[in-house]
Amino acid sequence: MSFRATVLTLFPELFPGPLGASLLGKALEEDRWALQAVDFRDFASNKHRTVDDTPAGGGPGLVMRADIAASAIDHALAEGFEGASPPPVLYLSPRGRPFTQRRAAELAAGPGVILVCGRFEGLDQRAIEAREVEEICVGDAVYTGGEIPAMAVLDATIRLLPGVIGAPESLVEESFAAGLLEHPHYTRPRLWEDQAIPEVLLSGDHAKIAAWRGAQSQALTQERRPDLWAAHLRGQAPAEQSDASMAAETPLKGDE
Amino acid sequence: MSFRATVLTLFPELFPGPLGASLLGKALEEDRWALQAVDFRDFASNKHRTVDDTPAGGGPGLVMRADIAASAIDHALAEGFEGASPPPVLYLSPRGRPFTQRRAAELAAGPGVILVCGRFEGLDQRAIEAREVEEICVGDAVYTGGEIPAMAVLDATIRLLPGVIGAPESLVEESFAAGLLEHPHYTRPRLWEDQAIPEVLLSGDHAKIAAWRGAQSQALTQERRPDLWAAHLRGQAPAEQSDASMAAETPLKGDE
Repeated sequence: MSFRATVLTLFPELFPGPLGASLLGKALEEDRWALQAVDFRDFASNKHRTVDDTPAGGGPGLVMRADIAASAIDHALAEGFEGASPPPVLYLSPRGRPFTQRRAAELAAGPGVILVCGRFEGLDQRAIEAREVEEICVGDAVYTGGEIPAMAVLDATIRLLPGVIGAPESLVEESFAAGLLEHPHYTRPRLWEDQAIPEVLLSGDHAKIAAWRGAQSQALTQERRPDLWAAHLRGQAPAEQSDASMAAETPLKGDE
Repeated sequence: MSFRATVLTLFPELFPGPLGASLLGKALEEDRWALQAVDFRDFASNKHRTVDDTPAGGGPGLVMRADIAASAIDHALAEGFEGASPPPVLYLSPRGRPFTQRRAAELAAGPGVILVCGRFEGLDQRAIEAREVEEICVGDAVYTGGEIPAMAVLDATIRLLPGVIGAPESLVEESFAAGLLEHPHYTRPRLWEDQAIPEVLLSGDHAKIAAWRGAQSQALTQERRPDLWAAHLRGQAPAEQSDASMAAETPLKGDE
């Protein structure tokens, strides 16, 4: 059974959207993963298909009802994952723990994922607790809804599934990355706008090239990600930080 | 002149995609912002429309050529931003600095943004330097391309533009958020699966409700985001951390 993603949303028509393009779209056609978008409003009981109500205790906005959210989650579990171990249920929310490359790898090793996309102020807390929903944030920013962050989680996860990216050895390399941001890249032409490719890269001396790239990685990490750099100096990265380093080590590798 | 977003990509057909829905789509129709997706291949000079080549110094994958990337950036600047101050050029990359709510607010205050979506191993470093491209990452994960992260940057930015969200006072509140994750939400029904809404929220005592919510926020922040909690204890959040707190304080506010 292939990896199964179920997205609970008020905008099911947005899926697969960008997830249907390129390598992810090809993998979807090849049944390496399956995607279902489910409309929360299908679980509303009144004729207006209302899914939200005002916050208890006052305040702006609207809160998604626990009964509606839980029904949608239960439906996703019953319809898509019969016989499989239940997948994690993730709710895209700025209150969540940061999404990392490590979490993507954990998801990719499982049967699938149910992604809850909020709009409004948020979900009723009772649904979060009763259904053991994991809150997760993609970048420290506020979005109009969970749909684009959910697409980001799926993109990072699906590319780790077997057969999605042509050269699986690049994914293995990722897992042993050294906790630093990647060195700069260059390609033809040799001279462009009076800027030459650094001489060492054209030397053919592999040891020198590796040393140069290593020094560049260190300098960049020190400048941009003091958190990663501190972990590197300590000799090993703590959990969250080594996630980031895996991400940084192999940007966009293996695509196209 | 309204905010202008130009996306440079190998997949222009993915835009507006999810950015065309809901509040962002309505704002796009109302010309509160403009979106143009430009195909890198339009700047290729050979009949195969090649935009990439092998990395100088060896290694896996392909690197986007500096001349192609720079031509696309120059075109975006010349076609969309005549007479305006030039917008920042952002390249979505795991090597970048983390995207934050503060950066979204800075972008929203400017004339627009040019977003460079990578595929392959990355961009030739000379184009990054020559065109003063800012590398930015959305979450610490590796994606197949920059398109979904670019959509995330635009979502977070566009919702801050005047008139996009109905109640501008919620955005003002965001900017003064207290550096903590948000308290839990509840709504009707009062009793659901034997779980009641916390009594205090139904008390009508606004001072008590505010105190309860404050305590919940503190407990959650302490548990999930020790980085934000440490900043809170120091009495003021450093730059990156206060960004995160703004994000966390008002999830999904004002949509729908």
